[in-house]
Amino acid sequence: MTAKSTIVGSPLPNIPWQDKPPTCAEVMWRYSQNPIIPRNLIPCSNSIFNSAVVPFEEGFAGVFRCDDKRREMRIHSGKSADGINWQIETEPINFICTDPEVGSFVYGYDPRVCRIEDRYYVTWCNGYHGPTIGVGFTHDFKKFYQLENAFLPYNRNGVLFPRKIKGNYAMLSRPSDTGHTPFGDIFYSESPDMCYWGRHRHVMGPKGPWQSTKVGAGPTPIETTEGWLLIYHGVLTSCNGFVYSMGAALLDLDQPWKVMYRTAPYILSPQTLYECVGDVPNVAFPCAALCDSLTGRIAVYYGCADTVTSLAFTHVDKLIEFIKLNSKV
Amino acid sequence: MTAKSTIVGSPLPNIPWQDKPPTCAEVMWRYSQNPIIPRNLIPCSNSIFNSAVVPFEEGFAGVFRCDDKRREMRIHSGKSADGINWQIETEPINFICTDPEVGSFVYGYDPRVCRIEDRYYVTWCNGYHGPTIGVGFTHDFKKFYQLENAFLPYNRNGVLFPRKIKGNYAMLSRPSDTGHTPFGDIFYSESPDMCYWGRHRHVMGPKGPWQSTKVGAGPTPIETTEGWLLIYHGVLTSCNGFVYSMGAALLDLDQPWKVMYRTAPYILSPQTLYECVGDVPNVAFPCAALCDSLTGRIAVYYGCADTVTSLAFTHVDKLIEFIKLNSKV
Amino acid sequence: MTAKSTIVGSPLPNIPWQDKPPTCAEVMWRYSQNPIIPRNLIPCSNSIFNSAVVPFEEGFAGVFRCDDKRREMRIHSGKSADGINWQIETEPINFICTDPEVGSFVYGYDPRVCRIEDRYYVTWCNGYHGPTIGVGFTHDFKKFYQLENAFLPYNRNGVLFPRKIKGNYAMLSRPSDTGHTPFGDIFYSESPDMCYWGRHRHVMGPKGPWQSTKVGAGPTPIETTEGWLLIYHGVLTSCNGFVYSMGAALLDLDQPWKVMYRTAPYILSPQTLYECVGDVPNVAFPCAALCDSLTGRIAVYYGCADTVTSLAFTHVDKLIEFIKLNSKV
Amino acid sequence: MTAKSTIVGSPLPNIPWQDKPPTCAEVMWRYSQNPIIPRNLIPCSNSIFNSAVVPFEEGFAGVFRCDDKRREMRIHSGKSADGINWQIETEPINFICTDPEVGSFVYGYDPRVCRIEDRYYVTWCNGYHGPTIGVGFTHDFKKFYQLENAFLPYNRNGVLFPRKIKGNYAMLSRPSDTGHTPFGDIFYSESPDMCYWGRHRHVMGPKGPWQSTKVGAGPTPIETTEGWLLIYHGVLTSCNGFVYSMGAALLDLDQPWKVMYRTAPYILSPQTLYECVGDVPNVAFPCAALCDSLTGRIAVYYGCADTVTSLAFTHVDKLIEFIKLNSKV
Amino acid sequence: MTAKSTIVGSPLPNIPWQDKPPTCAEVMWRYSQNPIIPRNLIPCSNSIFNSAVVPFEEGFAGVFRCDDKRREMRIHSGKSADGINWQIETEPINFICTDPEVGSFVYGYDPRVCRIEDRYYVTWCNGYHGPTIGVGFTHDFKKFYQLENAFLPYNRNGVLFPRKIKGNYAMLSRPSDTGHTPFGDIFYSESPDMCYWGRHRHVMGPKGPWQSTKVGAGPTPIETTEGWLLIYHGVLTSCNGFVYSMGAALLDLDQPWKVMYRTAPYILSPQTLYECVGDVPNVAFPCAALCDSLTGRIAVYYGCADTVTSLAFTHVDKLIEFIKLNSKV
Amino acid sequence: MTAKSTIVGSPLPNIPWQDKPPTCAEVMWRYSQNPIIPRNLIPCSNSIFNSAVVPFEEGFAGVFRCDDKRREMRIHSGKSADGINWQIETEPINFICTDPEVGSFVYGYDPRVCRIEDRYYVTWCNGYHGPTIGVGFTHDFKKFYQLENAFLPYNRNGVLFPRKIKGNYAMLSRPSDTGHTPFGDIFYSESPDMCYWGRHRHVMGPKGPWQSTKVGAGPTPIETTEGWLLIYHGVLTSCNGFVYSMGAALLDLDQPWKVMYRTAPYILSPQTLYECVGDVPNVAFPCAALCDSLTGRIAVYYGCADTVTSLAFTHVDKLIEFIKLNSKV
Repeated sequence: MTAKSTIVGSPLPNIPWQDKPPTCAEVMWRYSQNPIIPRNLIPCSNSIFNSAVVPFEEGFAGVFRCDDKRREMRIHSGKSADGINWQIETEPINFICTDPEVGSFVYGYDPRVCRIEDRYYVTWCNGYHGPTIGVGFTHDFKKFYQLENAFLPYNRNGVLFPRKIKGNYAMLSRPSDTGHTPFGDIFYSESPDMCYWGRHRHVMGPKGPWQSTKVGAGPTPIETTEGWLLIYHGVLTSCNGFVYSMGAALLDLDQPWKVMYRTAPYILSPQTLYECVGDVPNVAFPCAALCDSLTGRIAVYYGCADTVTSLAFTHVDKLIEFIKLNSKV
Repeated sequence: MTAKSTIVGSPLPNIPWQDKPPTCAEVMWRYSQNPIIPRNLIPCSNSIFNSAVVPFEEGFAGVFRCDDKRREMRIHSGKSADGINWQIETEPINFICTDPEVGSFVYGYDPRVCRIEDRYYVTWCNGYHGPTIGVGFTHDFKKFYQLENAFLPYNRNGVLFPRKIKGNYAMLSRPSDTGHTPFGDIFYSESPDMCYWGRHRHVMGPKGPWQSTKVGAGPTPIETTEGWLLIYHGVLTSCNGFVYSMGAALLDLDQPWKVMYRTAPYILSPQTLYECVGDVPNVAFPCAALCDSLTGRIAVYYGCADTVTSLAFTHVDKLIEFIKLNSKV
Repeated sequence: MTAKSTIVGSPLPNIPWQDKPPTCAEVMWRYSQNPIIPRNLIPCSNSIFNSAVVPFEEGFAGVFRCDDKRREMRIHSGKSADGINWQIETEPINFICTDPEVGSFVYGYDPRVCRIEDRYYVTWCNGYHGPTIGVGFTHDFKKFYQLENAFLPYNRNGVLFPRKIKGNYAMLSRPSDTGHTPFGDIFYSESPDMCYWGRHRHVMGPKGPWQSTKVGAGPTPIETTEGWLLIYHGVLTSCNGFVYSMGAALLDLDQPWKVMYRTAPYILSPQTLYECVGDVPNVAFPCAALCDSLTGRIAVYYGCADTVTSLAFTHVDKLIEFIKLNSKV
Repeated sequence: MTAKSTIVGSPLPNIPWQDKPPTCAEVMWRYSQNPIIPRNLIPCSNSIFNSAVVPFEEGFAGVFRCDDKRREMRIHSGKSADGINWQIETEPINFICTDPEVGSFVYGYDPRVCRIEDRYYVTWCNGYHGPTIGVGFTHDFKKFYQLENAFLPYNRNGVLFPRKIKGNYAMLSRPSDTGHTPFGDIFYSESPDMCYWGRHRHVMGPKGPWQSTKVGAGPTPIETTEGWLLIYHGVLTSCNGFVYSMGAALLDLDQPWKVMYRTAPYILSPQTLYECVGDVPNVAFPCAALCDSLTGRIAVYYGCADTVTSLAFTHVDKLIEFIKLNSKV
Repeated sequence: MTAKSTIVGSPLPNIPWQDKPPTCAEVMWRYSQNPIIPRNLIPCSNSIFNSAVVPFEEGFAGVFRCDDKRREMRIHSGKSADGINWQIETEPINFICTDPEVGSFVYGYDPRVCRIEDRYYVTWCNGYHGPTIGVGFTHDFKKFYQLENAFLPYNRNGVLFPRKIKGNYAMLSRPSDTGHTPFGDIFYSESPDMCYWGRHRHVMGPKGPWQSTKVGAGPTPIETTEGWLLIYHGVLTSCNGFVYSMGAALLDLDQPWKVMYRTAPYILSPQTLYECVGDVPNVAFPCAALCDSLTGRIAVYYGCADTVTSLAFTHVDKLIEFIKLNSKV
Repeated sequence: MTAKSTIVGSPLPNIPWQDKPPTCAEVMWRYSQNPIIPRNLIPCSNSIFNSAVVPFEEGFAGVFRCDDKRREMRIHSGKSADGINWQIETEPINFICTDPEVGSFVYGYDPRVCRIEDRYYVTWCNGYHGPTIGVGFTHDFKKFYQLENAFLPYNRNGVLFPRKIKGNYAMLSRPSDTGHTPFGDIFYSESPDMCYWGRHRHVMGPKGPWQSTKVGAGPTPIETTEGWLLIYHGVLTSCNGFVYSMGAALLDLDQPWKVMYRTAPYILSPQTLYECVGDVPNVAFPCAALCDSLTGRIAVYYGCADTVTSLAFTHVDKLIEFIKLNSKV
């Protein structure tokens, strides 16, 4: 199958893929060998989840949330030839930072990675008197440099756009509070220099049952001819706690804070044992998406039950069609 | 085996049944093929649970809570030849209502169905500026007519008695609040005409650990020579949320707000994977019971983990004996 | 001054009155001798507030919330020649009731009184396995008879209309929960016989800051040629608790659940020491209004700080004009 | 008395002043005619408090939080010849803004005003999908222009420094949540252009009982030869809600996020009736300070009980001495 | 007037006293010059309240809760010739303690003082990894010695009996949690040596509205021929926070955990401005009682609004009569 | 393998044991046949967990938390030849107690058992106006005698040391509140006689993520030449509730409140289905440890998901080495 060229980007014929099972009626389907990263892949890890990958050199590289057995939250780098079997560094990333006020590590979690021009930016939830958006970059996934935190606390799920928009860097984020935040909207911010941020715009908030408590951006938005394709998480509060599912939206290319379409139903919700049982039951949390502009294949990496990492697949044309048919903005 | 004729009602020799496993010490036992209704039986459904059935024509008919993939709560009708394999309509019930103020659909869930004289009444948790008890009826499970909501919000678990009592219709319900209500007693109300309700009486409240947070009526009460046999749910609050189990009680035939016996232990609690893992872990929630007056067999339909529907069996003589032996009113 | 005949009712030239102070810019102004009923008017009382009065014989009669020094909530009857100086019975009202299930007294508070045809109906928050709307009546303010509770718990602020509407009795109420309810809308219900109630309709909910937490009906609605004039309370939640203020609305004469106008600003909020300091700071809670159809004078009785009772005045033409000019439905 | 020239600024001999009463042992004392602005100074106002003033032309000008009788929060401008008797505009400020996404007014409260170079900047808590820091400016207190919001929600108490620091504008703020935030630290941020903000630094958090829940900046910091003199509010949580008091600190001149000294005791806490009784009891909330470099006199404007505005006085040398003697950083 | 000799103790003809006002209907009445100790009696004090006194030498001595202007809670000693005009030490008590693990001061509040044999024991709420009961003693109110904490945290309101009971020291206390505890019963414990405590017995819990949230012992119990006379505080939770009132009980002389009588109404509740307005509104909190066995006069010292200290009077015969007539155990 | 003699105690060559699987990197590993005690081992039981065992005669004896089907919490005794296959009495232990005030059973749970000299002491969470530490003993696991409760409520997890320390009995406990306590430190107390307790010392509190909410002692501390080896539980609060894991510490032999080493990581956390799914998901709760001084083998009994009982193994030398290498006090 060939995509109708909707993805603006490079061909990536080697991304992980598995055809949709014939009996599956969903627009997104799970990899049959899930989870791909077990909780104890490296000796110190209690769990590996909510992690992000990009194409790198001949294969793939990524940044991984590895909670250790103290349950401290750390970010590790890793590499993979096929995007499925990963080698994760046993030591966390040690960001190089000129200002110790910024660079002193407290905690880091839920990283994203985004190539912009000559480098790979990493954003994550960084502990600085509360959670805020840490920003760093690497050229080689060996040396990582840390910049200023983008925003004041309290914030989580900072996700960069893969190119400048009207001359400015652009980021989505989800302002929060200091705990298990029971609210959360997605906002858009711009920066001329990755240091100072402003021109904040509201993108979208909770809506409808599965995403009634809060929403947050997932993978780096995918540029398509139809708009920015955003996969995001939405949270419902049951009498037994939070349930994290995935949805998708199309944002205006030039004014990405304008939501053109947004799925009223979820596209994947926690239903398997590895999504429903673990350190935090009932969590499916997407942090990265690989996409092949040639075929339109998309592979989504998502954390499961805050414990392991899994893969799900979709196809850009099908997903965009689904979003448009099932949209409620 | 023949019942000691305790059930006041018709023979229903074709209700689903499976003998109690020899090693089972419980008064109620699960169907070995549970769950009988998977979460995705119809294309749009995220989950099918907390549903109610009645004998109808040669087989069975029912109303089903089908949450769709937006997690919107809807009620669908369905039919089955054997009570186990169900065909559920892919579209929700569209109640016919003369007053749009009442009939405008917001949400509907946890339905019950109850034959009284010439028709099948459906009651459910109906969204009207908060949850309250919606009332409708059908003759054929094709056309459904909606009447006035029985009560002011906020109320859930409205369950009709299968005949008038002293000339009035009678209903149990569980007044609640607007959220995941942390309290709940069962009350009894009467109506001369299914429109105006009054003469409200308290039936029972939380008691003992497994039912210490709230209680609510389950299936339509079963008339027996010993009194109204009520299967109900009780909720315990653990440090990880609510746990829903089932108990049973015997109510006075003429003054059903008088509880004669009530099980101090539960008769079924969430213990299997399909009851413990799902959208809401640890829920066993009964909404219907079929009973055969000839043999005394009872088949209970109950929702599991707010995700799927299962069957459990008991026997009227055994259950009444158990209630009396284990009662604490 | 003569009213433009907007009040449908009798002339009551002897109701309490004090002209508006020249410097006062408000549509409602306080009596200069407030509070008119001190907390310790009768020996046993801790506080006397949230009470209701009607014209009776040559003067006035009323039902009063008297919390005793156990802080038990009780209702007492009282009489007054001038509506300002009150004699309150030292013993609570002992309602005569044929069914002890209904008549067993647990607690009673926030009464209203409403003449319909040949009798004075009393409604109050009545303890029956939680708060609900108790209903009784008297002919002489000596003997009081108790009827069935109107609704299932949990409910407060039941307020009758002073005549049947389309052949049915009509009542406003505010469904609640079991505690210091943080929500509350006004609903409308009908009854053919003061026993069975139904045809429940939503009237209005919280809106805007001063009434953002909950709203509830105050005095018996006043029939005017412009619609039912409803004075009600609205609650704001500050970081130090609830603040109760008063607003006003005009309801459709035939379909009183339809709000035609409603004040965006409050018409009186707790600002004096007797409203701001007491058992519950910052409460102004109206429960009765006397109105003279001849002059259009209105005297509002309201509880202050859950401790004492005060009077405020307004004029029907001015108030209706204010409502229309400041309305946001 | 002459100040030891510690204030970096102009002589302002005409600021409001009253000598310390002989019997007063405090470093800050109240104006004997408090409150200076009553709640109903303008016709629409429910309350006027948490307001800020600056020297302007021959007298003083200011921006005032005026909650109207809907309890909507609005900002009005005002002028005064003596700083005590104020004329406040009856209409709220209408900010001129080129982008309606930013300029659409939702609510505005707790303003500060700060002269930097040729204009007066106004910062306030601005409603944009939650509270954040609105920024505007005026030359004449007639026309006000609105710029981009400085930060993402949720934030309150944005306070500018009165000059650029190392070439950048500088602002203190207190990130919050969406409600009556039970936490709060003061942070420092920089901007090259009043549009993009970054280089966020933590200044100080709760500490010790009177400021154990949260702290926030008050008036524009006063430049002195000893450092930036910051008067701030601290909040304690009693069993009956929040209590707001005032403290003071000295911040490093070049790195204002470094706290050199900070008062362990409060310098003023709610103790008078006008501070303890009102819409929100027990609030003393400073928003502006006038200071005369010649005498060292300081006049602090502070909101009382979220209802009225008052004045308190101190002296720069005495206050700095007090801070140093009573400091616990 | 002469008491009917019900008080077991010494004549104390010089205790503060003021006859009951003729118009007063209460069993306990306030001193007309209340409060007797203003909040700022000593230079460092923010408030002085919840304090305890005993007869000492020719006059009186006491231990006082003085919160300083940091709002740190400290205990100071003081003396008075007449029990009304007090000289309080400007420095807190420095307890002498051999074990620094116990003696390291964190915070101390709500002290009681109790003479047993040759010394004056002081008990207070002592910070040791949470609140617990500190124990110390003095002979002269100059040197104070600290013993082991009586109990594990979390506990408050430890009140000793004034003599050994069946050979053991005896103490009442109110186990709590770490914050503004929303529950609280009074328990009784014994010790052979003031070091090890055991034989814990439940005395009484919340009951009835004014004391529905928690109860705690107040002054040292007064031995009478009718039993131990215990004045205690009870707490009601309004929608605006806690309300502290006083009640009284009679405990069995030999088994003081047996409550013979207990006032259903309060005997004093916060009604005056100095009880209703202050750092914590609506608090009347008794900590000491002086009694004269000759006349039966009792003078109660109680904290008001967590801000100042006041006096109220009663008479032993009248109070015991009141308790018996108004008892609900 | 032979232990380096670190355990002070008797050889117990017959304790349950299974060698560490070759691929296991953990210091503690699970028994391959877990759970060893199913929830329904005895007819009345809903669940059997959080239970404690000791060597007894030729085999083993224990006390077991058996929640019955009412969910009432009861303690049963049991015996086993091999420590794996248990016979549990179908009736709960009936403690013999001279004082009915103490001995009246309300509820009992989470027992520990500890041999001191000639008898086996049982401590448990005992209902006496709230949870506190019940104390009893047995010689033969047939007759059990109940002593005074050790402490005032509210307390849980009372764990005795297996010998007197400096002449006194010694106990660890975790003061709590009345519900699902969201805090909890371990304290140490002494008693000369098992009746009166005092000299309370703080041992340790929450620290680091996996044990950030509360900590409590698990099995009877194991005396080693390196100090008291304490296995304990720590609790983390996720957005879906509490997670209970195990850690270990070394306490000073003479002053056991001094923590010398303590594991920063957990040594076992809930990861298997039987630990993650059940009445309370995600609980691993140790209550007993058998150790063989000859080989250093340790077998830990722990409750799983508040439903079943399992075994895990470790080795004393390895565990102590692990504690020291991974310690953060």
